[in-house]
Amino acid sequence: MRLSIATTWLFLKNMEYNESAMSIQPVNTLESNLQQAKNAFLSMATLTTAQKDAALEEFAAIIEMNADFLLGENQKDIAQAEQDGLTSSLYQRLKLDAGKISQLVQGIRDLKKLPDPAGQVLSATKLDDGLVLEKQTVPLGVIGIIFESRPDVIPQILSLILKSGNAVVLKGGKEAVLSNQAFMRLVQQLNERCPWLPAAWATLLDSREAVQQMLNYPQYVDLVIPRGSNQLVQSIMAATKIPVLGHADGVCHIYIHPSADLNRATPLVIDAKSQYPAACNALETLLVDEAIAAQFLPGFVRQAQQAGLVLKGCERTQSIVSGLESAADADWRAEYGDLTLAVKVVPLLEAAIEHINRYGSHHTDAILAQDAEAQERFLNAVDSACVFVNASTRFADGFRFGLGAEIGISTAKTHARGPVGLEGLVIYKYKLRGNGQTVSEYVGENARPFLHEAL
Amino acid sequence: MRLSIATTWLFLKNMEYNESAMSIQPVNTLESNLQQAKNAFLSMATLTTAQKDAALEEFAAIIEMNADFLLGENQKDIAQAEQDGLTSSLYQRLKLDAGKISQLVQGIRDLKKLPDPAGQVLSATKLDDGLVLEKQTVPLGVIGIIFESRPDVIPQILSLILKSGNAVVLKGGKEAVLSNQAFMRLVQQLNERCPWLPAAWATLLDSREAVQQMLNYPQYVDLVIPRGSNQLVQSIMAATKIPVLGHADGVCHIYIHPSADLNRATPLVIDAKSQYPAACNALETLLVDEAIAAQFLPGFVRQAQQAGLVLKGCERTQSIVSGLESAADADWRAEYGDLTLAVKVVPLLEAAIEHINRYGSHHTDAILAQDAEAQERFLNAVDSACVFVNASTRFADGFRFGLGAEIGISTAKTHARGPVGLEGLVIYKYKLRGNGQTVSEYVGENARPFLHEAL
Repeated sequence: MRLSIATTWLFLKNMEYNESAMSIQPVNTLESNLQQAKNAFLSMATLTTAQKDAALEEFAAIIEMNADFLLGENQKDIAQAEQDGLTSSLYQRLKLDAGKISQLVQGIRDLKKLPDPAGQVLSATKLDDGLVLEKQTVPLGVIGIIFESRPDVIPQILSLILKSGNAVVLKGGKEAVLSNQAFMRLVQQLNERCPWLPAAWATLLDSREAVQQMLNYPQYVDLVIPRGSNQLVQSIMAATKIPVLGHADGVCHIYIHPSADLNRATPLVIDAKSQYPAACNALETLLVDEAIAAQFLPGFVRQAQQAGLVLKGCERTQSIVSGLESAADADWRAEYGDLTLAVKVVPLLEAAIEHINRYGSHHTDAILAQDAEAQERFLNAVDSACVFVNASTRFADGFRFGLGAEIGISTAKTHARGPVGLEGLVIYKYKLRGNGQTVSEYVGENARPFLHEAL
Repeated sequence: MRLSIATTWLFLKNMEYNESAMSIQPVNTLESNLQQAKNAFLSMATLTTAQKDAALEEFAAIIEMNADFLLGENQKDIAQAEQDGLTSSLYQRLKLDAGKISQLVQGIRDLKKLPDPAGQVLSATKLDDGLVLEKQTVPLGVIGIIFESRPDVIPQILSLILKSGNAVVLKGGKEAVLSNQAFMRLVQQLNERCPWLPAAWATLLDSREAVQQMLNYPQYVDLVIPRGSNQLVQSIMAATKIPVLGHADGVCHIYIHPSADLNRATPLVIDAKSQYPAACNALETLLVDEAIAAQFLPGFVRQAQQAGLVLKGCERTQSIVSGLESAADADWRAEYGDLTLAVKVVPLLEAAIEHINRYGSHHTDAILAQDAEAQERFLNAVDSACVFVNASTRFADGFRFGLGAEIGISTAKTHARGPVGLEGLVIYKYKLRGNGQTVSEYVGENARPFLHEAL
């Protein structure tokens, strides 16, 4: 989720490297630490489901037992933050309390109940008698995760990594440093209680320099997941050749088709914009079909303004409702992150589709329509990770989709797209079991034929 | 497939940009061409299966009817190549004949029979009454494909792109320029006969500069597939932030466990090395367990040398069989691409696994063993795209795996791994169909619960 307020990246930029204060991972040993993480991954990848789930249960119990320690360390971070004069919103995200901790523990126990994402057989093919091919999911590798100030992200990430059998290199926000280190101390306890876990399965980086260096090691780090502001994600994407799972922008649209149920349209649009305006799946641009613009807009504008929305309109919109701010070309690419909404009248469905594909960020876009043909055309022609009919864009979320756990939301076109659950942390390998076959037997004049029988 | 001889990349490097000779795609209009390709993709993505399959049938028929034209243009390329003194191997790859063309036509008709890779419902979930989520495969986008001298690659690629509903920007080898342009002229005929195809669904680039420029446009090109030498693939990977599907190296291993059926081991190892030594899935390093090294190696070396293999041994190997060349550390990372094979004696299974994970290229590795525990340990612990038991590494191939079509072989850890079929050219989107739901209804005190019922 994007947050429109001061962000991790700004903290990273302003942060001075201070080895004595954060000694877990000095920069000069980074490469050897990444090598150890890679080796740890190779061990993690061979753990059984029972071993991984037992570690999750231990982790939940250790957090439960150490709640006071965690709250104490978090209190020190908060005291420092108060001294530094951070915003109240940041304070809210930084602060742990007993309720948040028991939610965390419950979250880990819920995750434990999910099926193991690794070891799933995607397909099995009999190539020939005694020659059977299996395509099976396997853990992906070393995952680099850079996140913002919320210290409760760290146990969530660690439990996703345990569940999927990967290794992780983490970097949290500076302002949560003691809270993060406290969680890492619990990881040490966990490793002692679960000797099947390799010590280096989780590594906490302590500086922005270390993150920058890590991005230069595609031989050790297989996937990077930045969880923070647009700027953070864009900086990471620009700085690395490692695949990045994430999204820089969330410019989401709703298009109101002439066949829409206009009574339901206004509350739905207000929900998509205002239910949590800082979220990446919040609405930024409303497209209104000209056939119903004069009928729909006056009432909508009144109710939207009552709900606190600030509307910016195209010329056509302004000609129907007076007194609105004017929307310029830049507004069609804007991710306001607040209660501002750009409104544009479009001549027909195809113009709406073209606008979305041109100006959108391929995140989440919705059509309001009763007409089935218009619905299907929109769903198929809009090139976005999530395409909705008659539902708020705010539904684009791993929890709401029922994924059980969310790694992040991706607008990439490869690997994983949209809200990504545990399946984003696995890939597959092909296992072929034979009894001594050579390829020569299947080539040339007397070649044996392949059976290619799905099992 | 990697080929060890002179490669596309070298041709690209030596090629002078000559706009008059190859006027299909001058450099200065590249960005607008990529924009058109992106727009063409948006149209292609909405074609029905019937429209795509009808285009494939037309394409096959047009190639069949224009065989003489294709052979004539190809003959001009060959005449030029003979004048330039190209190698006989390159000549073989460059040359089209009636047999190759009818194979091509058959290949397109076979592809047509495969299921549409797009439009497959991967999962469907009832979030609530009247709120249903579908995860559906969709075409991926604009695919950039850079390939070598074989002109028969072009119709293969074009048909894969048609079948999957993507758009493509292509660059072939300089020496096949007239053959490639001839195929593109048939694409113009195809577009006239199939007015549902957008004109820009296939674009042929004409210079190395254009390829380099294309790599700078991740906003238009979604995936790059280099089909050629190691150097080509490495250069492409180093030059772009666009995801690359491919593999730079194929350092493949066979490990002979003490429980192996030694009678079958020797022919299998010889097959893996010599059946087509230039292939990326050919064997490069043989690991022999010390428990059976003294028993196995003397007979193996004799037969391998009779089969033309050139063996390089570690110290232990040399102490068992005299007269072998010595293998240095660099040999464990070598992709010989010829009949050379490095041989190393290892103390046990775990040492073999460690060697493979450390020195290998994560492409294809095999164990020869009768012991089930050793087999499973190897399959799970070796971090490669293809892991085999008692079978030649040469089986790692889309045709042999029964994928129906092969886009390439990938050693990446995201998106697609191992031999990649049509599924590598699709991703998925989430389609949510509701009747006016807002997220607010599912939040807070009187929140509606989600059902999350798999359909």
